[in-house]
Amino acid sequence: MAKDMFLLWGSGSPPCWRVMIALEEKNLQGYQHKELSFDKGEHKSKQVLEINPRGQLPAFRHGTNLINDSVAACLYLENQFKSQGNPLIPSEQAEQALVYQRTLEAPNAQQKMIDVLTYTFRVPEEERHEATEKRNKEAATTEFQLWEGYLQKTGPYIAGKNFSMADVVFFPTLALAFPLGLSQKKYPKLGVYHGFLKDRPSIKATWPTHWMQDPPLKDPLKDL
Amino acid sequence: MAKDMFLLWGSGSPPCWRVMIALEEKNLQGYQHKELSFDKGEHKSKQVLEINPRGQLPAFRHGTNLINDSVAACLYLENQFKSQGNPLIPSEQAEQALVYQRTLEAPNAQQKMIDVLTYTFRVPEEERHEATEKRNKEAATTEFQLWEGYLQKTGPYIAGKNFSMADVVFFPTLALAFPLGLSQKKYPKLGVYHGFLKDRPSIKATWPTHWMQDPPLKDPLKDL
Repeated sequence: MAKDMFLLWGSGSPPCWRVMIALEEKNLQGYQHKELSFDKGEHKSKQVLEINPRGQLPAFRHGTNLINDSVAACLYLENQFKSQGNPLIPSEQAEQALVYQRTLEAPNAQQKMIDVLTYTFRVPEEERHEATEKRNKEAATTEFQLWEGYLQKTGPYIAGKNFSMADVVFFPTLALAFPLGLSQKKYPKLGVYHGFLKDRPSIKATWPTHWMQDPPLKDPLKDL
Repeated sequence: MAKDMFLLWGSGSPPCWRVMIALEEKNLQGYQHKELSFDKGEHKSKQVLEINPRGQLPAFRHGTNLINDSVAACLYLENQFKSQGNPLIPSEQAEQALVYQRTLEAPNAQQKMIDVLTYTFRVPEEERHEATEKRNKEAATTEFQLWEGYLQKTGPYIAGKNFSMADVVFFPTLALAFPLGLSQKKYPKLGVYHGFLKDRPSIKATWPTHWMQDPPLKDPLKDL
């Protein structure tokens, strides 16, 4: 079944990782895939642009269907393979509400983290301001505090007692944030959550290849 | 059925409008609701924070279930009321793939537009740079060009031949962009799309109240 699926991905990208976790959870191993390098600009290559006109990874194709947005791809896979692998969207109403809420809210955490990283690494020196940097860091801090609070109320998973789509979408951001300096002391519940999820088979099987040799820098999120 | 639903909303906010369109499409008229004022800071009020800890609108409750992310609320409503009102996620595989893709991709258009508006109206004068403003405008232009291209390929609706969740999520951004100066001459397909969707009953019934008396400023998106 998975042989008609094709994924172009980059190591360490939360959106790519999400799709790979969803594929594992739905027992869709055996899909075709190719790792591309962000550093070499391969996400802007013709091969990517043919699938994803945004020139971003992931670029995902199922047969002739192109689904590049990572959350869209995850929701599509769940819907198309409902009874295969692990169910990721529960049918019980209250659980479903919480899973949809956390799933669609998780990209906020990614965005606030990326705002800090972009400002640190990408915005030209002459356009940088301490006030903006401070605002970005405060927004990211507020964001991670929200998620820490969610785990206090409804853990152990990010949307309650079962693993769900919300974990598929949220976990990769957190797993990038810790090696970039997010403090497990300041966010103990998130630390525990990260600790037990990292050994889940779907996550272990898809752990970013380059982190194994070359872990990310320790600094940019240390003040959050 | 809709009597156990409660929506706090602000006029002209694309995320609020989305949820209101979805409620209409699913024949869930009769829900309780209250309009709040962004200008008066009412989105940070205790009433909102009890439902939405982000202090944002919409704040939506169905029974005891809180679903505040606008796309999450729309997906939840579709899933809970599949056979009621208009189906918003098609079951045919290729159509479903496209609808998920465009639905989850639409918040990009909102974000790029908001980046321009925030930079124009919110970032303090002393932190502003022409180069940043230019980058933001270029990114928003590229974004709206993508959507113009989608309509060229697969219209008349934003994800093909039928109205879908993708329209529910995308349309409010476009309907805000035009009165803020986006040129219908430069984006003719988007103009036609806007022209026929604005009379759809679900959209007409929920058209932002304050635009009727007090249309938005004409300027900030005119260069896109």
